[in-house]
Amino acid sequence: MAESEPKDADVTAAVLVIGDEILSGRTQDTNTNYIARFLAALGIDLKEARVVGDSQEEIVSALNALRSRYTYVFTTGGIGPTHDDITADAVAAVFGARIDFHPEALATLAQRYKPGEFNEMRKRMTRIPEGATLIKNSVSTAPGFQMANVFVMAGVPMIMRAMMEELAPRLRRGAVAQAATVEATIPEGRIAAALADIQKNHQMVSIGSYPFYREDGFGTQLVVRGRNQAEVEAAADAVEAAVRAEGVEPKRIQA
Amino acid sequence: MAESEPKDADVTAAVLVIGDEILSGRTQDTNTNYIARFLAALGIDLKEARVVGDSQEEIVSALNALRSRYTYVFTTGGIGPTHDDITADAVAAVFGARIDFHPEALATLAQRYKPGEFNEMRKRMTRIPEGATLIKNSVSTAPGFQMANVFVMAGVPMIMRAMMEELAPRLRRGAVAQAATVEATIPEGRIAAALADIQKNHQMVSIGSYPFYREDGFGTQLVVRGRNQAEVEAAADAVEAAVRAEGVEPKRIQA
Repeated sequence: MAESEPKDADVTAAVLVIGDEILSGRTQDTNTNYIARFLAALGIDLKEARVVGDSQEEIVSALNALRSRYTYVFTTGGIGPTHDDITADAVAAVFGARIDFHPEALATLAQRYKPGEFNEMRKRMTRIPEGATLIKNSVSTAPGFQMANVFVMAGVPMIMRAMMEELAPRLRRGAVAQAATVEATIPEGRIAAALADIQKNHQMVSIGSYPFYREDGFGTQLVVRGRNQAEVEAAADAVEAAVRAEGVEPKRIQA
Repeated sequence: MAESEPKDADVTAAVLVIGDEILSGRTQDTNTNYIARFLAALGIDLKEARVVGDSQEEIVSALNALRSRYTYVFTTGGIGPTHDDITADAVAAVFGARIDFHPEALATLAQRYKPGEFNEMRKRMTRIPEGATLIKNSVSTAPGFQMANVFVMAGVPMIMRAMMEELAPRLRRGAVAQAATVEATIPEGRIAAALADIQKNHQMVSIGSYPFYREDGFGTQLVVRGRNQAEVEAAADAVEAAVRAEGVEPKRIQA
């Protein structure tokens, strides 16, 4: 529970997902959601996410836009051994940095392969922009890297998750947002006016309204988020009262 | 199968997902993947996707960046009846258009509700920028709308999908990309050099390499995409040969 009460989070982040396979629809991106939850637990606000294809121009342009706006940028994808893995070069271009084989990464990967198997393409995975620090991972051993406020990670979810664990201690943390969820079998339009009033009277929280349609029926989830637990609870209580005023019994869901 | 052979697709698109719930990690976005596949089947290339929160400034800024670059922009989210539904106003601001209750949308929604239930907040769902055309849907009856090359849809997947069906006839189509997938129980690093050569010799296709780690083992999926079926097949055959040269029998997967 947050002791301090910052009105706005001061640690922000963006995710940049890199890969044609996301844009073609071949692959459902789940990395953004994982990173969003991971960062939320550290009190870091994910403010934006983007997906671009395997194009240096697109990667550079997106990275430049994001790294100047947010405390951190997390990229996933494009750091493997094949010709379509161009993220490291794009990051080097962004920072005007030289890129070369990283001695420690080379040594680590050389140990992983049998003699003769550590070929030229696999060595590409150890090309790291000058000035970057490695993000090691025990799943693939091929490292990601951090260049200034940009964290470059693998696209394979299992590897990306190991990298998030590895890099987490480097991150500045913010006050963790608290959330309270009120669920009710009521259409959102019936309580929308009350919600707007509650939002006006509780400016320290944000209230989201999310209708759902499930096999067991429809309804609305009302999510109150904020960095002050007492304010979140007060607003959630007001939301519950508004639902009850419509003759429906709300259910408080623990996140 | 495409008869023509355009080297580059000439119909492009971007997706803009709008909603705090995606960035907080509460909700896993699946709309982007659905739209990507839907557009691919129409020969429309999804080139970029973005997620922004419920902030007019962020929505306007993203929309202006995307609508000028791509043939179409598809937004999801933020058109419901509650205070956090601000997409229509943001789109009006983007185009400098007046926004007001749309007579036909008003009439349609009025029929859906019992007397007295069509309250002020629900009426908000019929506020449409001047000059826009409606995107009707039979699931919720609350319409989305098209303003120039921007298509504004609901965030609830079931409703968004109905809207995609409704708006599809309005879209200019391109040559549909063909894809061939070769799967092999081989680490991508072993065939990366051969893949790079094949890519060089088959410039009309793009070859993607996607390692996987499943319960039944690991391997790589090699995806050849292009608009000329013969070129795609030729490149996929070359990929299969490269895998066989490593002593592994590849499997052709039908998409």
